[in-house]
Order: sequence, then structure tokens, then C-alpha cells
Amino acid sequence: MSSLAELTDRVRAFAQERDWEQFHTPKNLAMALAGEVGELLAELQWLTPEQSAAVMADEDLGPRVRAEIGDVTIYLVRLADVLGIDLVEGALEKLADSARRYPAR
Amino acid sequence: MSSLAELTDRVRAFAQERDWEQFHTPKNLAMALAGEVGELLAELQWLTPEQSAAVMADEDLGPRVRAEIGDVTIYLVRLADVLGIDLVEGALEKLADSARRYPAR
Amino acid sequence: MSSLAELTDRVRAFAQERDWEQFHTPKNLAMALAGEVGELLAELQWLTPEQSAAVMADEDLGPRVRAEIGDVTIYLVRLADVLGIDLVEGALEKLADSARRYPAR
Amino acid sequence: MSSLAELTDRVRAFAQERDWEQFHTPKNLAMALAGEVGELLAELQWLTPEQSAAVMADEDLGPRVRAEIGDVTIYLVRLADVLGIDLVEGALEKLADSARRYPAR
Repeated sequence: MSSLAELTDRVRAFAQERDWEQFHTPKNLAMALAGEVGELLAELQWLTPEQSAAVMADEDLGPRVRAEIGDVTIYLVRLADVLGIDLVEGALEKLADSARRYPAR
Repeated sequence: MSSLAELTDRVRAFAQERDWEQFHTPKNLAMALAGEVGELLAELQWLTPEQSAAVMADEDLGPRVRAEIGDVTIYLVRLADVLGIDLVEGALEKLADSARRYPAR
Repeated sequence: MSSLAELTDRVRAFAQERDWEQFHTPKNLAMALAGEVGELLAELQWLTPEQSAAVMADEDLGPRVRAEIGDVTIYLVRLADVLGIDLVEGALEKLADSARRYPAR
Repeated sequence: MSSLAELTDRVRAFAQERDWEQFHTPKNLAMALAGEVGELLAELQWLTPEQSAAVMADEDLGPRVRAEIGDVTIYLVRLADVLGIDLVEGALEKLADSARRYPAR
């Protein structure tokens, strides 16, 4: 299984090989991330809660949702790389904050 | 260093301990992901490209951007878990697609 | 010139004629609105500030931005109609709030 | 009742009085619009379809949804003003396009 660190390297190399680093400011990447999340929403917007829960079993919608989540992940990983943020560490810190604000029952 | 798999487990446990799994349909989680990306955009929206490139060095904005990216990551990891998607594999597949569509120079 | 009230009626009739009212919950419409805003972001994401300021003069991008803003407006008008909100009144109220929070120099 | 044209003038004056025009590029305003739509999503994300349909009757959520839609409208109106787009005309054009692509039954 590939790791997040390997994915980060692959996405960075992808940008370098196309001379796209000049476009990859945090601001632009955040917009691109939002654009991809918008495409993900568009796949789910008219579904009932039940239909959304079964979406991966749909032979048409399932692969599209998977592809959109792939795009979201690519831009999130690229944004974190450009900002010098470790995604897992950052998320664990935020989860610890949330645990203090919303104690478990 | 913690892995993405560990983060996935931690986020799942966090939801279970609060009885929040009932709210975590793919549709609802995609909305929550979009909401967090919206907060990230709000931190960057008035910055020049140059200011955005240096945002992590700002003692006020840097931690806020880091926290928003933490929230985005938490919801993306949770959404992938609920859908049964491996984030890294899905992103690598999409990257391979993009490589075919946009050949390197 | 057509008014916002006329546009609201036209969008409502459009939904009724296609039997789409069943899908038009506030939640679904907010997702559709976000999806269209995501498409708008995608048109602007790699532009410099200066390029974005001149976007309507670009014969390719100008009409696309116009079309995306049309879609955003359609879903915002539809959402306000379903919620029973007068868009102009609601915006003026919020503007008055903001004027109190951010006094003019 | 106030019109969209009056709202446009008020929002423009609001920006001028605060010397905020320098920040109001189409790119920045599209990000601000997306940020406000994200806040709207956050109000609706955990609701069932039925709860979302009744949201304006909720004494807590109703005013918050109204305020978020006010913010979305303000940024959309400001963006259209900066781009020189008539929101109603643009939406009617797009509606005519959609009518061709999705004929009524």
C-alpha cells in the first residue's frame, strides 16, 4: 500500500513536470480544492440520505464519487505540501481540540 | 509518525463515542467537508498571491490555516471511511488519469 | 428589464414543469448552489488578480464566467423562494449589521 | 420594496466607504462568496430533508440561515457589479439554455 508521503511526492513531481508550480500558491490551491469539493457535492446533491449511503454500489455514480474524492485528495495533499503541513499530525491536533470541546458521553 | 490508517481509526472512534454515526451519511459529510473548505477560503480570500505564499509565517493566520486544513482532513478521512475508499489509492488512480490527459512536456 | 420577482417566478415554473420540486429541499438546493460556486471558482483559480479583473474581456472565459454566475443566481433565487426569504431585504438587513460591526472611516 | 439595483448601489457604497475596493477582484469576491456558501452549508449539514424544509420555523436556525443567505447575496451582487453582469439577465439566459437541454415533459 502506498503512503501519504509517497502520494505527496508523486503529486509534487506531477506539478514540476508540467511547470505548474508557478500556479500553486496556497490561495490558488485552496480554490482548486473548493472547486473539486463542489464537483463532489454535485454528484450527491439530489440523492436521499439512503441513496447517498449506497452510492458506491451504483455502477454509474460510484466511480464518479471515487474520482471526485481522488481529485479532492490530490489538491489537499498538494496544498499541505506547499504550506509545509503534515496532514495527519494537523488533523490529530484538531481532533484533540474537538475532543476537549465536545466531551464523549 | 502517525499514518492515515491510524487517523481513520481515531476519527471513526471519535464519531462512535459521541453517537454521531447516525449523522455521517456521505451526503452530510460532503457538506461538512465543503463547509470546512469554505472556512479555509475565508482565511485566504483577501490575501495577495505573495501574502498567501507566506501565510504559515504569520503568527495569527498560520495556526488558523493549519487548523482549517486539519478540519478538512478530518472530514475527508471520515467520508472516505464511510464510503470504503482508500484515499491514497483513489488519488493515485486519478493522478494516472490526469497524466494521460495532460502529458508532461 | 426583468426583475428579481419575475426571475423567481420563472425559476419556480421551470422546476414545476419538470416535476423537480420534490428534489428542491433547502438542503439539496444549498448543495447545488455550492456546486455551481465551485464551477465559478474553477474558472478563476489559476488567474492572477489582474487577469481575474479583466476576465469579462476574454472571449473564452468571459461567457463561461457569465454562465456560471447565471447558474449560481438561479439556485440562490430558488433557495430563497423555497425558504420564503426576500433576497434584497435579507441582504440589506445583513449589510446594516455589517455597517455596525465595521464602521466606515 | 428595494430593488436589486438599489442593493447593488448600497453594497458598492459600503465597499467604497471602507476603502475595500482594492480587495474586490473577481477572484477574491468569488472566494468570499464560496466562504459564505460554506457557512450556509454548515447550518444545514446535519439536518434531515424534512428538518431542512422546516428550517425557517426554527427560532434559532431560521435567523441564521436568513443571515447566511444575506451574506451570499451581498457577495454575489458585488461580484456581478465588479464584472459588469446583470444578474437577472444572466440568469434568464442560463435558464433558457437549460430549458433547451432539459425539455419539460
